[in-house]
Amino acid sequence: MKTAEFRIIKPEIRVLGVDDGAFLHGQKDLVDVVGVVFRGGYWLDGFMKTEVEVDGFDATSKIASMVLKSSHYEQIRVVILDGVTLAGFNVVDITLLSEELKLPVISVTREKPNMDEVRKALEKLPNFHRRWQTITRAGEAIEVRDYKPGCVVYIQLAGITLKDAREIIRKTATRSCLPEALRVAHIIASGLSKRGRKDLKARNSMERRRS
Amino acid sequence: MKTAEFRIIKPEIRVLGVDDGAFLHGQKDLVDVVGVVFRGGYWLDGFMKTEVEVDGFDATSKIASMVLKSSHYEQIRVVILDGVTLAGFNVVDITLLSEELKLPVISVTREKPNMDEVRKALEKLPNFHRRWQTITRAGEAIEVRDYKPGCVVYIQLAGITLKDAREIIRKTATRSCLPEALRVAHIIASGLSKRGRKDLKARNSMERRRS
Repeated sequence: MKTAEFRIIKPEIRVLGVDDGAFLHGQKDLVDVVGVVFRGGYWLDGFMKTEVEVDGFDATSKIASMVLKSSHYEQIRVVILDGVTLAGFNVVDITLLSEELKLPVISVTREKPNMDEVRKALEKLPNFHRRWQTITRAGEAIEVRDYKPGCVVYIQLAGITLKDAREIIRKTATRSCLPEALRVAHIIASGLSKRGRKDLKARNSMERRRS
Repeated sequence: MKTAEFRIIKPEIRVLGVDDGAFLHGQKDLVDVVGVVFRGGYWLDGFMKTEVEVDGFDATSKIASMVLKSSHYEQIRVVILDGVTLAGFNVVDITLLSEELKLPVISVTREKPNMDEVRKALEKLPNFHRRWQTITRAGEAIEVRDYKPGCVVYIQLAGITLKDAREIIRKTATRSCLPEALRVAHIIASGLSKRGRKDLKARNSMERRRS
């Protein structure tokens, strides 16, 4: 998608926040990824869910398909991700995602991604070059600070200007330093995966008893 | 739990809204039930999930255990259910739930429950008397109207006065006629069960191919 400028960013702009649940390596093949539609920083309008493979390559296509199939797609104005990696190192190609959805995509993290560490971790996985290329394609994380007093985040962008992205973060971060859609997506994804871990433990223990 | 009166109902009172996902009879044995912690009618503070049996008898104990295990339990001041039946006719005993949790419980529905129809449906299920007893124990649904202009709901109560329940509904119904925790629990539970149905269809179709 070409980078267009927003003519106006309404306080109640419809934002999709996307985050993944926690998981333990070796215990799960699929991780829940939830999408939460928010009106600005104010109220929840919709919920969607998909699953992506741990350290897989399907994060971009799974998110794209989740959003395109959703009844909220036509209303959503921007997609905000909690970083460009989900379920371990299943890398989201934010440029491709933005093109597929015809929507701007912003990745927001609280910590500055340490690219040396990321590179080292990726080198241990198959298809290093493919993952590394996708990650670097997202561009370096840009520091954005003091959109609210004391707040700082690091963002990567596709299909949106830095000025507009900053303004969207400022308007939607009503309860914390993060856009409200992302804060809530995180709470729900964590709650789902907690349960998931317990189910898995129960299943593992049942299977042990059977064998 | 004895019915105590609230000394004060803060606009940001912590409320747990509980709702179940949709399901098709014969397609599922377990249905997702989600709990959403809200600060009054304003923002989401927590998320929890359990599963209950279709037409089973575990709704009361499963909700009680979900809430008691949650890190939010100590902060929650009132539990609001979307009606007293979950997953078909898995009846919540709101008096028992209120006693187990030491919290007031309010069941809220948009339509007045038609007890003749409920009775007819229950008569087709095993353990009619046990279900009917639990349902009638919740007391007749009381109409509450105009807490917001044009709004009407029907409520059943345990451990709370009608006056306090009405005030809690009035203060938390910020975006619709329903308490915000219940509106959001409904959106999330519906979103989860949509996905669940698709997974189930995929599984059924895989199993058909295998056999």
